[in-house]
Amino acid sequence: MKISARNQFHGKVAQVTMGAVNAQVLVTLAGGEQIVAIVTNESVKSLDLRASADVIALVKASSVLVMTDDTGIRLSARNSLSGKVTALEKGPIHAEVSIGLASGDSLHATITQAACDALGLAEGIDATAVIKAPSVILGVPD
Amino acid sequence: MKISARNQFHGKVAQVTMGAVNAQVLVTLAGGEQIVAIVTNESVKSLDLRASADVIALVKASSVLVMTDDTGIRLSARNSLSGKVTALEKGPIHAEVSIGLASGDSLHATITQAACDALGLAEGIDATAVIKAPSVILGVPD
Amino acid sequence: MKISARNQFHGKVAQVTMGAVNAQVLVTLAGGEQIVAIVTNESVKSLDLRASADVIALVKASSVLVMTDDTGIRLSARNSLSGKVTALEKGPIHAEVSIGLASGDSLHATITQAACDALGLAEGIDATAVIKAPSVILGVPD
Repeated sequence: MKISARNQFHGKVAQVTMGAVNAQVLVTLAGGEQIVAIVTNESVKSLDLRASADVIALVKASSVLVMTDDTGIRLSARNSLSGKVTALEKGPIHAEVSIGLASGDSLHATITQAACDALGLAEGIDATAVIKAPSVILGVPD
Repeated sequence: MKISARNQFHGKVAQVTMGAVNAQVLVTLAGGEQIVAIVTNESVKSLDLRASADVIALVKASSVLVMTDDTGIRLSARNSLSGKVTALEKGPIHAEVSIGLASGDSLHATITQAACDALGLAEGIDATAVIKAPSVILGVPD
Repeated sequence: MKISARNQFHGKVAQVTMGAVNAQVLVTLAGGEQIVAIVTNESVKSLDLRASADVIALVKASSVLVMTDDTGIRLSARNSLSGKVTALEKGPIHAEVSIGLASGDSLHATITQAACDALGLAEGIDATAVIKAPSVILGVPD
């Protein structure tokens, strides 16, 4: 797909929960992981999102946090995908961190260079990508 | 206005739909486009947002995705603004893409340099800015 | 905590308002300020968020807007934390702005270099960090 979201995962809708304005959509990725997205009710209707529909979950790299093992903290962010750091690109303000998942997929995060240093990120170490549910955009074939 | 949001569009509230916690606000921009914002109910009350009120829609450049034509995918993101790439500023990690809209307004997005390369973005090509409704902040004159 | 969010504030839950899908959580920070977070109802349950619970409020630097004094505009973004610019790190695309709060805490924002220039940001000037409620992630000790 020709869209700038660095993270694009194929999956199937597992469950849709409508609210007053927003809906919660549970997606099972091709690699087996589950992702939760919060989208508006109108998007659920216009995209006809329902159980077993094919979808693509899109996440901007800037919406991804990176956590190293054993934080001892549980988070309100609904999505956690664990793997190993496979690449680290450093810049003056931001760094781009690539995490290889067990499924074989890669996930990309842009975090501040200061956070990258504070976490001691390096290729090969265990890391978890954390993504808030409203940061996930869903796409369906036209 | 003295605030860092790169994108600031003047418009008028077209419709407000209250939910349990969040509300959906439809704004018609001065240039004719429509933008959907999700804000909290309390913001609707404290800003007194109602049909035909003057508002400014603010969007951080980092909240904007860039799509090139013919993706063949429909997205849950509620806002799409189309135009032509008018400027491209490259950095080590991010690139800033400016898109000129038909209305004459410009829209700015920061995306990863890797995504910029993958999309083959260049000045003059057609591009669409995609913005999730919760990424839009509304402002009203004090 | 070992997570890349540049902003991590300790506090206590003051109030929880459940919605259909999302909940609003009011947190009083150790420094006295209040922060509003929008999280999903399921996060409220799984983290057992209730009045007076200890929490950490996490905010990515890229989710923070920077406002200089006297904008004459009221915003739908629910969180405003005021202080003085204590550091400014410039890059080709983004700048990182550090704001020292009255409480002694520091807050970090990444904004575009263009916005930084337009605002005339410099060390020592008054600035307010603006954060949308859905950009706040809550954490609790495991």
